[in-house]
Amino acid sequence: MGCCQDCLHYVFDYETPRTLVIPHIGVGCVFRFTQILVVLYVVGYVCVVQKAYQEKDSVISSVTSKVKGFALTNVSDMEPQLWDVADYVIPPQGEGSFFVLTNMVVTPKQRQWRCPELPSPSTTCVDDCDCIVGHSDPRGSGIQTGLCVNYSSTLQTCEVFSWCPLELDTKLPERPLLAAAENFTVLIKNSITYPKFKVHRRNIMPQINSSYLKRCEFNHVTDPYCPIFRLKHIVSEAGEEFQDLAVMGGVIGIIIDWSCDLDWWAGKCKPKYTFRRLDNKHPNRNAAPGYNFRFAKYYKTSAGEETRTLIKAYGIRFDVIVFGTAGKFGIVPTIVNVGAALTFLSLVPLVCDWFVLTCTSRRALYSRHKIKYLRDDDDVDTESVSMGTTYGTQ
Amino acid sequence: MGCCQDCLHYVFDYETPRTLVIPHIGVGCVFRFTQILVVLYVVGYVCVVQKAYQEKDSVISSVTSKVKGFALTNVSDMEPQLWDVADYVIPPQGEGSFFVLTNMVVTPKQRQWRCPELPSPSTTCVDDCDCIVGHSDPRGSGIQTGLCVNYSSTLQTCEVFSWCPLELDTKLPERPLLAAAENFTVLIKNSITYPKFKVHRRNIMPQINSSYLKRCEFNHVTDPYCPIFRLKHIVSEAGEEFQDLAVMGGVIGIIIDWSCDLDWWAGKCKPKYTFRRLDNKHPNRNAAPGYNFRFAKYYKTSAGEETRTLIKAYGIRFDVIVFGTAGKFGIVPTIVNVGAALTFLSLVPLVCDWFVLTCTSRRALYSRHKIKYLRDDDDVDTESVSMGTTYGTQ
Amino acid sequence: MGCCQDCLHYVFDYETPRTLVIPHIGVGCVFRFTQILVVLYVVGYVCVVQKAYQEKDSVISSVTSKVKGFALTNVSDMEPQLWDVADYVIPPQGEGSFFVLTNMVVTPKQRQWRCPELPSPSTTCVDDCDCIVGHSDPRGSGIQTGLCVNYSSTLQTCEVFSWCPLELDTKLPERPLLAAAENFTVLIKNSITYPKFKVHRRNIMPQINSSYLKRCEFNHVTDPYCPIFRLKHIVSEAGEEFQDLAVMGGVIGIIIDWSCDLDWWAGKCKPKYTFRRLDNKHPNRNAAPGYNFRFAKYYKTSAGEETRTLIKAYGIRFDVIVFGTAGKFGIVPTIVNVGAALTFLSLVPLVCDWFVLTCTSRRALYSRHKIKYLRDDDDVDTESVSMGTTYGTQ
Repeated sequence: MGCCQDCLHYVFDYETPRTLVIPHIGVGCVFRFTQILVVLYVVGYVCVVQKAYQEKDSVISSVTSKVKGFALTNVSDMEPQLWDVADYVIPPQGEGSFFVLTNMVVTPKQRQWRCPELPSPSTTCVDDCDCIVGHSDPRGSGIQTGLCVNYSSTLQTCEVFSWCPLELDTKLPERPLLAAAENFTVLIKNSITYPKFKVHRRNIMPQINSSYLKRCEFNHVTDPYCPIFRLKHIVSEAGEEFQDLAVMGGVIGIIIDWSCDLDWWAGKCKPKYTFRRLDNKHPNRNAAPGYNFRFAKYYKTSAGEETRTLIKAYGIRFDVIVFGTAGKFGIVPTIVNVGAALTFLSLVPLVCDWFVLTCTSRRALYSRHKIKYLRDDDDVDTESVSMGTTYGTQ
Repeated sequence: MGCCQDCLHYVFDYETPRTLVIPHIGVGCVFRFTQILVVLYVVGYVCVVQKAYQEKDSVISSVTSKVKGFALTNVSDMEPQLWDVADYVIPPQGEGSFFVLTNMVVTPKQRQWRCPELPSPSTTCVDDCDCIVGHSDPRGSGIQTGLCVNYSSTLQTCEVFSWCPLELDTKLPERPLLAAAENFTVLIKNSITYPKFKVHRRNIMPQINSSYLKRCEFNHVTDPYCPIFRLKHIVSEAGEEFQDLAVMGGVIGIIIDWSCDLDWWAGKCKPKYTFRRLDNKHPNRNAAPGYNFRFAKYYKTSAGEETRTLIKAYGIRFDVIVFGTAGKFGIVPTIVNVGAALTFLSLVPLVCDWFVLTCTSRRALYSRHKIKYLRDDDDVDTESVSMGTTYGTQ
Repeated sequence: MGCCQDCLHYVFDYETPRTLVIPHIGVGCVFRFTQILVVLYVVGYVCVVQKAYQEKDSVISSVTSKVKGFALTNVSDMEPQLWDVADYVIPPQGEGSFFVLTNMVVTPKQRQWRCPELPSPSTTCVDDCDCIVGHSDPRGSGIQTGLCVNYSSTLQTCEVFSWCPLELDTKLPERPLLAAAENFTVLIKNSITYPKFKVHRRNIMPQINSSYLKRCEFNHVTDPYCPIFRLKHIVSEAGEEFQDLAVMGGVIGIIIDWSCDLDWWAGKCKPKYTFRRLDNKHPNRNAAPGYNFRFAKYYKTSAGEETRTLIKAYGIRFDVIVFGTAGKFGIVPTIVNVGAALTFLSLVPLVCDWFVLTCTSRRALYSRHKIKYLRDDDDVDTESVSMGTTYGTQ
């Protein structure tokens, strides 16, 4: 019963610190000033600038792209040829990334046969024992047959079994063959979701109608939400010159930033487009500067023999990179940040106590009333401070 | 020496606030009740609902897909043709995204030549001076030669150099050619990693055996972990009708959610599949509604001239989008959230002090014992409250 | 006026708790020791180990890859053939993922025609009524014509309309055809950005020159930053044997970790490469073990009939997976973590008070001086403790 009563007293008695009120205007000002600093940090920096009261979520995205345009090539050793989308976008469709051919080295009518290797320090020979049967130099062009044959009237190289005639990739045109590619346009459709907040958006805004879409072209100032981009504009926004880039190719990033504030008091969620060159433009430190790859078109002769046209394709790969973080008011981050700020508010009395006990003129008085020093020789029995005792009576 | 002793006293003397215990049942109840509210928030909301004590990590993923099925097309101007995987999945393999052809406009036997442009307000002409040599309209079909020729017996248009005959993409069939595509199935294999926690998972569960895989088909209720999906089921789960979608094509997202709780007391980590249409289904505001692209098959005649079959392919692109956040108990987030909650526990005495000094009947008494007001005229010398002095003696 | 003065007093009077200093060395040690533990947690664990004072950002990335090498195949039923990059990388270019053909089943000269289905329990027949016109078994090879024809001299199966002759995919070579693929090399260029911190990096370090790039090969110990990888080395680092993997194919992840500390006192931001097999290597529970897909090369005969060569391509798909989190000093996370730690510092006095009032020998004395119990029968009027009263006088 007594234990139960003690328990009740322990739970329901309220223990509160005894305080001292110091009517010092200077101390009061220091106190309120430091409190206001902490509150300003919370409201100004944490809430308004950093929006740390928000829950965050990352974007998931899907992109489609569609290029439009024609280019005419007319070089001395090739027929005039019109290139349309099916010819210059390789592969014809993909997710998020599309390649536009701007320059090429074409080696037609290749078939599996033997021919002299291209001349280099490791392939020139004098007679057959300089060439090793079955040897394959990765920087070479095929598998050596072991024979040393005439490459030209003055030069002999090892014979290889390969797709012959071999490709001469030093023949790259100095000006890009598909120079007209700078006027091609690409329509980019991007659909994003913030799964935590169940928010879906598209980069083609609801208020855009199809007649606007038929004639508009993206421009940061005049048409920032038009999803149709001219390739020349993309490349120049990335700080490059299209005709220079188009010779050896490159990789350009079309970066779509969907960072949004999803609270009801914030504006709409809209994409921001930026453009950057992603590959290294400095050729000196670069293995394989620019961007190129080889592909082939395969044919069969009427005799049933397979031939191919090898194309070393140089061009610009446009990577559509979508990223973003959405923020929305969340109870947990708000509590955490407000709690952290309140902790610093609890430091303010420490600062003020130090100020009171160190810097004020009447600090001895304040110290005497605030702090009671318990000395070692105080006796357990002699003192009694129960509130029932009236002072002064013995 | 005295400085050293002062230092020791400063470090090792323990300063504790002097407190007042108020045996008021009302105040005690308010105190404990507000404490319980804060603890409930921490345990209930922060820990159980939001799991804010966990470290988070984002998923990295790899997807392979394999479609199966045949379709037979039999239209008046084409031979009966069987379409298998090598014919309708373009390109044949990729990471995360696969395209299934459902409808098309085929323009066979194209070769580089001259032919009259398709009629439109900008291409009809009366005589040669209406046509500009070298002009290329992006919405046109080739490069103008400067001649005005007969398109039909009644109409004249500018002649263009292009792949002739030109494509008539208004001839799109109203019902999808590969209607049988709705019964194709796709096997999706997904391997994920949470790199921070070094956890790897696959969507094909360890307990699944190959006889089950040979016959199962995904269903949210009966077979939620079967990795084989019927295309018709995917599209209908996305809220669309397959045969309608297949006419102009579209983009369907297969969204795999790997959000997991990786603590030992939680269940296993399993994927959740949802399906959504990602492109905009409303044609009015849409440039290029649906999903289509052009590709070509290239051939060579026995004379060595290159011809091609141009295919404007309409179909459904399925984007497999994998996302997820894993949580695992972490010391730092636990400390941060518990710390924030403790800060609010430290607000509880403020509330109770206010209650004691404002709302109780004996507030004047409590105030007198709790708060000591230091008045301006208190003298430094007259008071002495060292514990050595016995009360009452002067 | 009195209200205004009360307001001023409320705002600018400084209220500080009255404290008791206990000169007990044991209590002081407990106090300082627990404080040091909390500070060590903050400095040691939170700051140094977990770096929880940092803002975090996720990486966005772009990857290009370029394979090099030749392989010679020479099997009994095929001509000797050299395979170069245009032949074995399918599709020829892509973002982040590349496929290398290592084994295949080739079915040449297919054309749309009728032929007997491959024998299986569902396709063998005795006469025409066992075969259903228009039936298409997804595991079969075409659309049934309704006729039962001779497959061989001893066996009859239903006739199908399909690309004939049918593929016999049981003819997969036991040793990979392109065994030389293990010596192919791939150059991987990776460009990353941390958008929040506006930091860009490439995996080809600025100090690497092109002569080094021409001869180096990646090795964890000797050349950890060389971007050229030998396929055999990648596969063995993933714990696999190349020649075994190459038979049925597989999916290998090249995982690039860009986790960085971007503060000025940290080292440079460099990528870490790891390799893992992503598909399931255990065939028992696996539908379609390994990695394969079908593609076709299309040709036209001189008569204008379309034929194709169907290739069931087995090979290794290398997925370049880039991930990473960058951290940089941030004010908000620092305040939050320091605040949480300070909250625990405020728990230390609770621990010490309990120690003082429970475990020390003089706890009754300390209790008497620290805690004042307000009893219920204390009268509002009889007590007066204003500082103006001199003790001892009544």
